[in-house]
Amino acid sequence: MNQQYPSKLVEQAVEEISKLPGIGKKSALRLALHLLKRPEVQSVQLASALVKLRTETKFCKQCHMISDDELCGICASNKRDESVLCVVEDVNDVLAIENTGQFNGLYHVLGGIISPMSGISPADLRIETLVERVRNGNIEEVILGLSPTMEGDTTAFYLTKKLKEFSVKISTIARGIPIGGDLEYTDEITLGRSIVSRVTYE
Amino acid sequence: MNQQYPSKLVEQAVEEISKLPGIGKKSALRLALHLLKRPEVQSVQLASALVKLRTETKFCKQCHMISDDELCGICASNKRDESVLCVVEDVNDVLAIENTGQFNGLYHVLGGIISPMSGISPADLRIETLVERVRNGNIEEVILGLSPTMEGDTTAFYLTKKLKEFSVKISTIARGIPIGGDLEYTDEITLGRSIVSRVTYE
Repeated sequence: MNQQYPSKLVEQAVEEISKLPGIGKKSALRLALHLLKRPEVQSVQLASALVKLRTETKFCKQCHMISDDELCGICASNKRDESVLCVVEDVNDVLAIENTGQFNGLYHVLGGIISPMSGISPADLRIETLVERVRNGNIEEVILGLSPTMEGDTTAFYLTKKLKEFSVKISTIARGIPIGGDLEYTDEITLGRSIVSRVTYE
Repeated sequence: MNQQYPSKLVEQAVEEISKLPGIGKKSALRLALHLLKRPEVQSVQLASALVKLRTETKFCKQCHMISDDELCGICASNKRDESVLCVVEDVNDVLAIENTGQFNGLYHVLGGIISPMSGISPADLRIETLVERVRNGNIEEVILGLSPTMEGDTTAFYLTKKLKEFSVKISTIARGIPIGGDLEYTDEITLGRSIVSRVTYE
């Protein structure tokens, strides 16, 4: 049944909240009415945190991870192995891999994945800076930590071609992850194992 | 495992988002990272809708329902039966009852329910204006549409005492609703039936 909204302001709030993934109109209405019952300061703080998040967040100039400073905590750390680079699609994937505690190298966040269907071409991704890092640095191995989907495989193939001129070992995280699954939803044990038993591209 | 946040701004946003009901830290992080990937205008519009909702929303001066004008659409309508008043705890309950299409009278939103455990006393609710409406108007019946919980029963008992000096019929929605349940989650059929087969207080 089509929900009637008691006011335009509620309707607008519901409209905006329900644009978030996994939140439908009904949940959005509940959240809106919840905020109306709470002190005004809560809504204002929430709104301000969202705007700040979007407008002030910086990205690490080396690996493109979200960061408070020019270099993120991982790139700036002297406890990480700078000879191993794990290439991932997204910030979520870095967090997922960090949570396994199985990887001690650095990351490179592509900011997406090659997907002709969604109109994302290699030029839209941070591939140039990856090639630059491999060319300049003392990187010995590049681990491709991409989701085992068609887009992930396409991206892995493209990157392998791009990087083959350098004397760098290229590997992919083991396909312990179910084919067609999504990397960030994989449990920590499986994901950790898949990094340890990564397979070298010949 | 304790989640590491890539930046203070993300952490603050997660903190604020996870204050919403039904959204944990993990979902909050997903929402925050989602917003980071979307155009800036989406976060700004969401934030502005939330602040506007909380600061500009008006309440109907007659029934205390959320409203764009002085009188809400229900109170202002000339198609509603002004001799029947349904007393509810909250705005959500008005929406739930409206959705059943079984009620054509007016509402009175108490803005809460008597609950000594949560420190809500009759003085915190809009009971005075309810008594005033019954005293002034040509109201013939007051339906108590309160959740069948201890607090709901307490409030119903209190209101019955308050209203017994007036020659008004007092009824309660039928307890087709499971005892201990929450009014706004009841399905439309059960809720509609419970209005039709309401029971008169002797």
